[in-house]
Amino acid sequence: MSRQQRQALDALLRSGPRLDTQPAPAELRTSFAAAVTRPAPEGVTTRRTVLGGRPALSLEPAGAADRGRLLYLHGGGYVAGSPDTHSGLAGELAARAGLRATSVDYRLAPEHPFPAAVDDGLAAYRDLLATGADPREIVVAGDSAGGGLSIATLLAAREAGLPQPAAVVVFSPWVDLTLSGESMRTKEDADPIVTAAGMRAFADLYIGSGNRNHPLASPVFADLAGLPPILVQVGANEVLLDDAVRLAARAGAAQVEATLEIGPGLPHVYQTEHGRLDEADAALDRAARFLVSHLGALADAGQVPGH
Amino acid sequence: MSRQQRQALDALLRSGPRLDTQPAPAELRTSFAAAVTRPAPEGVTTRRTVLGGRPALSLEPAGAADRGRLLYLHGGGYVAGSPDTHSGLAGELAARAGLRATSVDYRLAPEHPFPAAVDDGLAAYRDLLATGADPREIVVAGDSAGGGLSIATLLAAREAGLPQPAAVVVFSPWVDLTLSGESMRTKEDADPIVTAAGMRAFADLYIGSGNRNHPLASPVFADLAGLPPILVQVGANEVLLDDAVRLAARAGAAQVEATLEIGPGLPHVYQTEHGRLDEADAALDRAARFLVSHLGALADAGQVPGH
Repeated sequence: MSRQQRQALDALLRSGPRLDTQPAPAELRTSFAAAVTRPAPEGVTTRRTVLGGRPALSLEPAGAADRGRLLYLHGGGYVAGSPDTHSGLAGELAARAGLRATSVDYRLAPEHPFPAAVDDGLAAYRDLLATGADPREIVVAGDSAGGGLSIATLLAAREAGLPQPAAVVVFSPWVDLTLSGESMRTKEDADPIVTAAGMRAFADLYIGSGNRNHPLASPVFADLAGLPPILVQVGANEVLLDDAVRLAARAGAAQVEATLEIGPGLPHVYQTEHGRLDEADAALDRAARFLVSHLGALADAGQVPGH
Repeated sequence: MSRQQRQALDALLRSGPRLDTQPAPAELRTSFAAAVTRPAPEGVTTRRTVLGGRPALSLEPAGAADRGRLLYLHGGGYVAGSPDTHSGLAGELAARAGLRATSVDYRLAPEHPFPAAVDDGLAAYRDLLATGADPREIVVAGDSAGGGLSIATLLAAREAGLPQPAAVVVFSPWVDLTLSGESMRTKEDADPIVTAAGMRAFADLYIGSGNRNHPLASPVFADLAGLPPILVQVGANEVLLDDAVRLAARAGAAQVEATLEIGPGLPHVYQTEHGRLDEADAALDRAARFLVSHLGALADAGQVPGH
């Protein structure tokens, strides 16, 4: 157990500014990058590439299996972040799963509001399929807004008539732009990083006066039927806790194989703390095993009972 | 994948009577036993014993580790079931975990209404501790009403000032005697076994005109802080789906390490179908690994951040 680690992390995070006063996007991107960036792990070779017409970062772990491909979508409130800020997190997941990954530099708000990010996510997935990748050998993962975007991308793929990938993992997903989760209030004091005000500012930049209930903006309100097995990991100290709970519950109710893991004392996207927080390493290991265990599974073509 | 298995199981279950017309308790116990009883697996030695002043069944897998003990609480709506009806399910879990188990014949309603079952659960746990068992080497599991009783027992232990065990697993737990979960309606057609009317009849027999919100009767309304790591498994085709979801969510929010697994196309306590349904075997394997992985963990003595 890592009570000391969690307490130290909580104190460290509280020593910085919380995201409740929104600076200008350029400034926000700089401070976000400074706060979260970690390098790709040793043994993971990075290379600039293009996927779905967008710049992307390829992350290839030494000794990666020939089979399988991870599509990664970074967090940052749809406003900040990039494959570079998340090369540590995406690279750790890729390395633990032994999978080659591609992390997409999807367009950001406010310059490119909803649905630009979803369009880019779908284009990236479509491009992977177009290069001949078997969807049963593709897995998807994302954190925070990138977790919501991962689900939105799969929903857009379903609407486009594309096959689903083998599995999806989301870390502390943001899936409700209306901020209607109870934890927005109940976890306000416990969350050392994220605030409802901060999330509202991100939503304003991403969707403005658009429909915040749109299923591709707030997939917690979508019909999730047909999605692949999903693993949702979240910390107990998050205003976004109920986003994770409701996503897993709604997926499961829609006959999606759904696993939810709630970690006590842990903040938003705690997986970023790999190497210095035991729970982060354990969570990444579980996520990697989950992805690999679903690779190549025969699609469950027919309807399950009750659907 | 076992789509055919799940469809065949669904059809089989629908061919029998659902629990929506309640016969007299004696008749109910007979038909319940006929429907669910499976023998202890080969290699598991059963022996009559006593625990906490109640008859109990000891289940000892060949080659069980010296360390560790599983306390099992069977389902049956607090009205039916016994260690004998559940020697298959408890024995399978014990065998896969390599743990000696004791399954308690707690008192049943209506002859012994609430809180007799909780008193017996607590007495059994207290007796395990009194024989010198290290709480870090005890794990608890139960299904359906026995899942609710498992949580109630741990809450009663907490109130009594006893240490918590190392972990708890619940299969399709019934934790809300008020039947307020949305799935009581939304899964009415999908559930091949259980109905709201049937659960209401069980609640009437167990608690009558008592307070159905009592935390030891409906632990979904309890403060769950201090409970050990919990794994909740449930099928998507259950009126009790939301009992499972809310239990995991509430435990997680209270800083309990919580994992929820929702299995598509699966009915109430589908783990009973071990050996003939792939998902049942996989779920029992995961449950066993979860229990074993938490054995002997150092108690996280202090408060986690946010609590």
